[in-house]
Amino acid sequence: MTDPLILYTNPMSRGRIARWMLEEVGAAYHTEVVAFGSPMKSPQYLAINPMGKVPAIRHGETVVTECAAICAYLADAFPEAGLAPPLAERGAYYRWLFFAAGPLEAAITDRDLGMEPNIAQQGRVGYGSIESVLETLEVAVSAHEFIAGPHFSAADVYLGSHIGWGLQFGSLESCPAFADYWARVSEREAYRRASSLDAQAARQNASPL
Amino acid sequence: MTDPLILYTNPMSRGRIARWMLEEVGAAYHTEVVAFGSPMKSPQYLAINPMGKVPAIRHGETVVTECAAICAYLADAFPEAGLAPPLAERGAYYRWLFFAAGPLEAAITDRDLGMEPNIAQQGRVGYGSIESVLETLEVAVSAHEFIAGPHFSAADVYLGSHIGWGLQFGSLESCPAFADYWARVSEREAYRRASSLDAQAARQNASPL
Ligand SMILES: N[C@@H](CCC(=O)N[C@@H](CS)C(=O)NCC(=O)O)C(=O)O
Ligand SMILES: N[C@@H](CCC(=O)N[C@@H](CS)C(=O)NCC(=O)O)C(=O)O
Repeated sequence: MTDPLILYTNPMSRGRIARWMLEEVGAAYHTEVVAFGSPMKSPQYLAINPMGKVPAIRHGETVVTECAAICAYLADAFPEAGLAPPLAERGAYYRWLFFAAGPLEAAITDRDLGMEPNIAQQGRVGYGSIESVLETLEVAVSAHEFIAGPHFSAADVYLGSHIGWGLQFGSLESCPAFADYWARVSEREAYRRASSLDAQAARQNASPL
Repeated sequence: MTDPLILYTNPMSRGRIARWMLEEVGAAYHTEVVAFGSPMKSPQYLAINPMGKVPAIRHGETVVTECAAICAYLADAFPEAGLAPPLAERGAYYRWLFFAAGPLEAAITDRDLGMEPNIAQQGRVGYGSIESVLETLEVAVSAHEFIAGPHFSAADVYLGSHIGWGLQFGSLESCPAFADYWARVSEREAYRRASSLDAQAARQNASPL
């Protein structure tokens, strides 16, 4: 018996990242669409994620929140999918997963909020400046076929989603390095399947009763 | 032959987290103190970390930056230290590692910069509000002896450092849950050793030539 796997998501959210990862591992899962607003802040859902945000997954008794954690967890829980490097070779894998979840996300959020740290603040702000984050990332995505080396991994699902999203919605400046990297990672069959499932869920969600 | 292990750090920095983790795994390592300012932005150091920030580690040919990634990497590279759960049981471990590196760090940074997202912005900002982050964390650190369950792990080194640091410097409101959690994790011998090594490095650094 395998443990039941549930995805709590909204098709118009970062939950798309979690679905992509679920499609990559290939395990059967059940989707629960959680509407924004009061359903997402209901006691039932807060028992899953006290942040009142999507996505979250439940796998048997284990609840995981945070997109990057969901990617890392699923890669390890389903090793046959080959989405995480061997334990002794995870330097680049963790480096860029945490770089995307920390500095990249924070720098983009702050710029979106109209906050760009001055030079004195940059020393203590973990991402320094958005310019240094993007320059660092431009080199990193060009160094190998994929972010952790020659093989596609869960770190590409997570970082790739940030980059694909940023290019699509203009929260990231386009540059050949990002466009090429996104072209490589978005070729995945699992990405296409996930996108079409979310598009379908979005249409259903939007349809009148 | 084991691969040489180098810590690039400054005793007055987040590098203390990386040193604590190195002391936990118990492997021999060499410390390179990098001074703030131009040495940290020199071509030699930018070749290690293009962000021009500490800490970073080099283990053989592998360079890892980002404190949380360094913790996760070392736990996996030195499995005999028992600082990461088995692969199939890493839900809570990754959840709280990424929660600390993402929402917690971003919320504290933004508050420090004088930026608190309004209610409309909270929906798209990954941490929502600092209040929801701290409430979520208060419950999480009280649920078990350690953040990922009954055993101390690399996630406690990273999250514990954030909490210990926040309590010490006032960037986190003190509450019994945080104080108790910090008391539990800071009991580690490795934490004491790391602190005293950094205190020593700070004195040497501050001394006149
Ligand atoms: N740090 C979280 C962020 C999750 C998040 O902010 N989700 C948004 C949608 S993209 C959300 O649920 N917003 C609704 C709300 O805050 O009420 C992650 O990476 O999973
Ligand atoms: N996201 C990084 C943050 C590193 C960081 O901001 N380090 C600070 C010291 S605590 C630094 O090197 N500042 C010097 C500078 O930016 O010039 C991590 O978690 O390791």
